[in-house]
Amino acid sequence: MGSTTTPVDLSHHINKKSKARHPSPLKDIIKYMAYDGMISLAGGLPHPSLFPLEKATFDCLTPSAALPSSGHVERTGDELVNLTLGRGAYPGDLDLTQFLQYGSGAGNRHLIDLARELTERVHAPPCQYECLLHPGNTNAWAKVVGMLCEDDDYIVVEEYTYPSSQALWIPLGNKAVPIPADAEGIKATDLREVLANWDEKSRGARRPRVLYLVSVGSNPTGITMSTQRRKEVYDICVEFDIIIVEDDPYYFLQYPQHAPSTTPTPFRPKPSAAFIATLIPSFLSIDVQGRVIRLESFSKTLFPGLRLGYFVANRVFTERLLRATEVETQDPAGLSQAFVLSLLRRWGVDGYLTWLQSLQHQYATRRDWLLTAFYANFTVLPAAESPLPQAQGLVACLKKKNGEGGELRPVFSFIDPGAGMFVWAKFYFAGVGRYAEIRGENPEDPEQAFAAELWQAWASELVLLTPGSYYHPWQGADKVTTEARGAEAHTAHFRVSFASPTKEEITTGVERMRKVVEEYWA
Amino acid sequence: MGSTTTPVDLSHHINKKSKARHPSPLKDIIKYMAYDGMISLAGGLPHPSLFPLEKATFDCLTPSAALPSSGHVERTGDELVNLTLGRGAYPGDLDLTQFLQYGSGAGNRHLIDLARELTERVHAPPCQYECLLHPGNTNAWAKVVGMLCEDDDYIVVEEYTYPSSQALWIPLGNKAVPIPADAEGIKATDLREVLANWDEKSRGARRPRVLYLVSVGSNPTGITMSTQRRKEVYDICVEFDIIIVEDDPYYFLQYPQHAPSTTPTPFRPKPSAAFIATLIPSFLSIDVQGRVIRLESFSKTLFPGLRLGYFVANRVFTERLLRATEVETQDPAGLSQAFVLSLLRRWGVDGYLTWLQSLQHQYATRRDWLLTAFYANFTVLPAAESPLPQAQGLVACLKKKNGEGGELRPVFSFIDPGAGMFVWAKFYFAGVGRYAEIRGENPEDPEQAFAAELWQAWASELVLLTPGSYYHPWQGADKVTTEARGAEAHTAHFRVSFASPTKEEITTGVERMRKVVEEYWA
Repeated sequence: MGSTTTPVDLSHHINKKSKARHPSPLKDIIKYMAYDGMISLAGGLPHPSLFPLEKATFDCLTPSAALPSSGHVERTGDELVNLTLGRGAYPGDLDLTQFLQYGSGAGNRHLIDLARELTERVHAPPCQYECLLHPGNTNAWAKVVGMLCEDDDYIVVEEYTYPSSQALWIPLGNKAVPIPADAEGIKATDLREVLANWDEKSRGARRPRVLYLVSVGSNPTGITMSTQRRKEVYDICVEFDIIIVEDDPYYFLQYPQHAPSTTPTPFRPKPSAAFIATLIPSFLSIDVQGRVIRLESFSKTLFPGLRLGYFVANRVFTERLLRATEVETQDPAGLSQAFVLSLLRRWGVDGYLTWLQSLQHQYATRRDWLLTAFYANFTVLPAAESPLPQAQGLVACLKKKNGEGGELRPVFSFIDPGAGMFVWAKFYFAGVGRYAEIRGENPEDPEQAFAAELWQAWASELVLLTPGSYYHPWQGADKVTTEARGAEAHTAHFRVSFASPTKEEITTGVERMRKVVEEYWA
Repeated sequence: MGSTTTPVDLSHHINKKSKARHPSPLKDIIKYMAYDGMISLAGGLPHPSLFPLEKATFDCLTPSAALPSSGHVERTGDELVNLTLGRGAYPGDLDLTQFLQYGSGAGNRHLIDLARELTERVHAPPCQYECLLHPGNTNAWAKVVGMLCEDDDYIVVEEYTYPSSQALWIPLGNKAVPIPADAEGIKATDLREVLANWDEKSRGARRPRVLYLVSVGSNPTGITMSTQRRKEVYDICVEFDIIIVEDDPYYFLQYPQHAPSTTPTPFRPKPSAAFIATLIPSFLSIDVQGRVIRLESFSKTLFPGLRLGYFVANRVFTERLLRATEVETQDPAGLSQAFVLSLLRRWGVDGYLTWLQSLQHQYATRRDWLLTAFYANFTVLPAAESPLPQAQGLVACLKKKNGEGGELRPVFSFIDPGAGMFVWAKFYFAGVGRYAEIRGENPEDPEQAFAAELWQAWASELVLLTPGSYYHPWQGADKVTTEARGAEAHTAHFRVSFASPTKEEITTGVERMRKVVEEYWA
């Protein structure tokens, strides 16, 4: 770590409430407990001999076990590793007792070391950092908002953003500043313009200090920010003193571009270094100042029920986050820590990187199922060659029936998601008869009124998409309609997920989608 | 549940921020997912076939396994139950998959049913209520403060209170209103006086609306509130519209009075109903209005690393707490939920109640070790028969040496803790030479200055107690010294824990305590 840089002083970013947190005085005693022969009548911990769990064993897949595309496969012995955690004289892989007792708040030391090792291998951060465990990215983000944001602050977000992340701060009076995006992510020019021209008076709030980003396989847009764009955005954040919160659960689920015509290739893992080299550099990996707070999660790479992840951040932030951890949550659950530590030790970091490639292959295959279904049900063209040359990515048009002439009717555009679990489909309502009817009734938001009808029609055909409105950044009660938000007229979005359904469900689901579209668009 | 009462309307207690929380729109879709034949492309859940955990097994003690007083005992087969949680066709005790996936926020339905069953058996609440899982009482209290307290509100607490509970709200500008206590708990007359005479102008804040209590085996005082006092306090809370937050981790650790001269009796569990009848009625059990929020924890009864407990409360509160859960933490960890559900099903509620009696017996034995060591090292007398007749409970005096005459020198008073893990010792400094010296130097707080020296002297003799100052309620920066707090002059407290040390450690620890006391008091 000798060549890493020292963070710049960012302590002015800690908000009033977080600054007012003091370390628990009880923790002061802990250093005395280490004295030779010390008898402590000071602790309040229950006695571990009175815990009823003696041993835990976990049967897990090997990193290279073949993964099923659906359902559950019974495993044979050589696809399984058996982890044993015991107590006392026969601990097995790990002594369980430490994971049953209260922790320090920071999390198990060995698990933190493992998080550091993984961080070094994958991101090689150029600036000094610490790792701190947290009970999942939902809680991690709540703690970051609790540390950085004052009530009524604005928070910079992507043009469409993860709803639970803003459901957390809407009640605090915070508002979103959404930044328009193209296929490479949020636009640096728009970000700069918003910050450079920020008017405290008209906004009624100080200039934003936090940028929240899911910059790989964004939920809902599926967009992954390009390397060049990251550099531009990072430089602007330096210039305007913005903290970047990099919520990155899909980082390892980056895919090669979908190729409509080729047959699927069998999975072959690369050596770890070669795999890492294929991944887009994280903000953490270009952060020379210590202004990136990275939220790491095992929810998408092992399983969500763990409620376990870790912060990677400048010590000025992890120290405050630890103070919040002590009084808000304490350590993540012990069985989750024990499971992850024993699994990653047995697999090794390289084994874990192999597992991630296997997962990546699986989700890429699922992405391909969905896009293949789009190609099968619609005429999909690059935007430039489509009736909507100004659209981004690809445009799905209604197929002409046999012998039918005339123009292709565009229905929705989308960007091939290079990562994550979602396709973000932008539907075009211009020329749809029922939409024109609705507009004639002069509703407040004709686009959303028709989108709601369309969603209901799909549900009646037994296919569910997620309404795009769920992902509209909250800019206040006066900026809710399509027009007030400044969104493109006669359009609305839907999110299509390829994470959970089977191939058959995707195929049938998209057929049902198309059937309803034909009724409205034809 | 037909005979239970309907809660009175307490919705005005929800604070501004909590009122502003809206249900996640994503949850709306869930009801459509249940339609026959529905294909969902709406979910964002990772695919469970891609989770690497196939099977988990837990070797646990039986409810009546003999518990060791220290160290770890290897168990034979008939003291162990083996819980198996698998996936797919071979689930074992429980199908594991549901615990690996994201949950609903409320927690596993069957575990909630079990929490209800236990609540009915033990507390039989007279008013309608709901149970909601939470990740430990630390987080539960953080969510309750987030729901009920506005910034700068006062919160009513015991005379001495759990420091982490106030470390949570001190940064929010909240302050404590401590209520003096006697051996039966906080005094109803003092509570009434504070509330009846609340002056918004001089206090700069509205009358408190929340009473936070550890009413069984309070940390640090060890006091358990009597049944009569509970009724008086509850009635005052009705009169002044106070919400009672009952943080009750030690509820099942209630002990018979310590009898210095008798020999220990072997443990024999009572039938469940007879055991429950010995327990002091909780506030929940007398709450006819729905104004008690009970925080239940498995940390002291199973193990803390679970980070799992549950709220029992009026639906108007659990509904808001669920909204906070969705955006702040999500479900408690899946392996913790799976472990507790499978263990309690296998043990049965009656088995769990047997286990609790076994634990109770263990901690009662530890309490006896500590008090026996007090009796061995000091002359312990009922206050009325001691040189400090106005003290509460028992007074420990320096023993006279052989042939020595004169008066007994009182050192500390304490109340035999009828529950929990702690003895709260009030030390009397009047007549201690070194204390008089310190006073001569006119420090700001001579009591705390001498207490700090005493603590350090004990640490040098290799015994640690917890300074009482850690438990002083936070009333603002101007009310920190012994005098400013209005505490009794020439006294200070120390907390002595009997939870973790062995019998030998307790015996030696108290001898070391006495040795230092002799040097200062003689």
